[in-house]
Amino acid sequence: MNIKELVKPNIRSLRAYHAEDLPCRAKLDANESPYPALSSQQSAVSVKNALQSLNRYPDPQAISLRKLLATGLKVKPQNILHGNGSDELIQSLIATFGGPVLYPVPTFSMYGIIAQSLGERRGAVPLDEKFDLDIDKFLDAIKKRNPKLIFLSSPNNPTGNSFSYDRILKIIKRSNGIVVVDEAYQPFSSKKSFIPMLKKHKNLVILRTMSKTGLAALRVGFMITHEDIVNEVNKVRLPFNLNSLSQKLAAAALSDEKPILANVKGIISERKRLMREMKKIKGIIPYPSDANFILFKVEDSDIIHRMLLKKGVLVRNMRGVVDGCLRVTAGTPGENSEFLRMLKQLMTK
Amino acid sequence: MNIKELVKPNIRSLRAYHAEDLPCRAKLDANESPYPALSSQQSAVSVKNALQSLNRYPDPQAISLRKLLATGLKVKPQNILHGNGSDELIQSLIATFGGPVLYPVPTFSMYGIIAQSLGERRGAVPLDEKFDLDIDKFLDAIKKRNPKLIFLSSPNNPTGNSFSYDRILKIIKRSNGIVVVDEAYQPFSSKKSFIPMLKKHKNLVILRTMSKTGLAALRVGFMITHEDIVNEVNKVRLPFNLNSLSQKLAAAALSDEKPILANVKGIISERKRLMREMKKIKGIIPYPSDANFILFKVEDSDIIHRMLLKKGVLVRNMRGVVDGCLRVTAGTPGENSEFLRMLKQLMTK
Repeated sequence: MNIKELVKPNIRSLRAYHAEDLPCRAKLDANESPYPALSSQQSAVSVKNALQSLNRYPDPQAISLRKLLATGLKVKPQNILHGNGSDELIQSLIATFGGPVLYPVPTFSMYGIIAQSLGERRGAVPLDEKFDLDIDKFLDAIKKRNPKLIFLSSPNNPTGNSFSYDRILKIIKRSNGIVVVDEAYQPFSSKKSFIPMLKKHKNLVILRTMSKTGLAALRVGFMITHEDIVNEVNKVRLPFNLNSLSQKLAAAALSDEKPILANVKGIISERKRLMREMKKIKGIIPYPSDANFILFKVEDSDIIHRMLLKKGVLVRNMRGVVDGCLRVTAGTPGENSEFLRMLKQLMTK
Repeated sequence: MNIKELVKPNIRSLRAYHAEDLPCRAKLDANESPYPALSSQQSAVSVKNALQSLNRYPDPQAISLRKLLATGLKVKPQNILHGNGSDELIQSLIATFGGPVLYPVPTFSMYGIIAQSLGERRGAVPLDEKFDLDIDKFLDAIKKRNPKLIFLSSPNNPTGNSFSYDRILKIIKRSNGIVVVDEAYQPFSSKKSFIPMLKKHKNLVILRTMSKTGLAALRVGFMITHEDIVNEVNKVRLPFNLNSLSQKLAAAALSDEKPILANVKGIISERKRLMREMKKIKGIIPYPSDANFILFKVEDSDIIHRMLLKKGVLVRNMRGVVDGCLRVTAGTPGENSEFLRMLKQLMTK
């Protein structure tokens, strides 16, 4: 029996996600926060109940968590759907609405991977030279392909910039399908969120995550949208998709957001420092960022990547996505200083 | 914009999973273990590290957990794939191999629901009058429909019995597709597991879960099968599908399985007592069970269900699945005694 012949044709050419576990002192490759959103003391207290009832299924509706999210965002709990990370919500959205799925490139790779894994058609529209949406090409693609779903990550990963507000708005207006604005990195941005536009645009879905602000371990993503869309996507959601501990800890973090906001402020300030300092290094071209990371161009990027790692600093090599570029996540001030020192050393050799 | 018109046709007729949160003293409706697999003290110790790095993504490969699972089952880690509950693995299997998806009825409802949510064809073959596989009808359906995937839950939920070993084996042999034997309730069964048959049958997949033996809160399911199948299904797995705390706590529970085995032994003994006692109650017909629950027939099942709940005992009403039947999970000895007392009272009125 040949298993390859048994799998669906769309799966055959798909490659499994591969994450290398590279030992390093400063882990600046995964757009994580350098700070947990809760102290381990707070965490221990907030999971105490959950640890006593490990034998019970989680709340399938995640009511407490959704209520807290709703209050914070000034929407209703029925406007929110919880996911085992945003990844799962992307999967559920594509399962619900199908393709064609349209997105710009380069962007977050999971839009395309998940569309392929579900056997849906997909189309990619290159960004312009400023990594902004190429609005003419994008509107043209909408006209030609009539996508059921469009994914716009803004701020965009891995480029770091936010797309022009007006271009996103134009796409929302011109699309006959659903437009998902993935605001995973919005907390680090000075640009406006699209949440206020939900009232006006019935085809708009906003994705958010707790993974970038200090809770990546928990896998808590959520979408904010109209009740009609929540109800449809909820049909394909697996009933117990979010485990009890993640629900409890995420709720604990949301019940007092001050520490998260302080961390975010610190990360933004460090990103600005990284940007200033990187601009001073000859041979390094950092791109503008509204996120918790910076994409930068450097000659011999593969070598620099490897040399940094040798010195204990892990950044992401964007080969195959934005060739010649590396991506560094803003870490602690100490980690960032170390990264800058190493990079300077390597570039002045 | 009409959202209903935008969703895929297979989603339109799908209904969202609905779980009622009914207040009760004895929760005997969800096939959970009455005992957590870890004390809250053990749990607190084992998650301590994870709570300190909530900001970091979980291990996408769940290496430690898969190694422990592999050792316990005498297979290799590369024979195991981890899921956010078995539900997610059922979804990944169907996304990988597609339909037609074949299963007996009544059985675990998620096989059909997930197949529909992914737009795959599905077929259901009624069980025989003993709730065993109707082998002629089943082989006939295999011949006619050539299913890519067959799901056999044994012991079967909600009927409680294991299917005949030989009939399952015949289905594995006659199928040109993948046969998934869902052994969620196997720990409570006196019948043989199909794990030893993996060596001989390349189209066999075994599903297991930690949800029935005291860790339902964590959502840890896994499949055991050939490396070829693991590699294909792994392509559609979302990279960070199992959060860090669930990985840690599941690993802690597996590192010393004695308490779990003791709990399972206690639950089996309580199931046997429930069976003996229920047989003595006039008007109650309990069906043979190899699981941690018992399906029973009773006249006016809706009324009995409601009356039990009124007295604080929640069981599952199987209306629409096995009409006229209720399903009771074996709880603590005290909960079971309470259930038996209430049931006797109601039946002798």
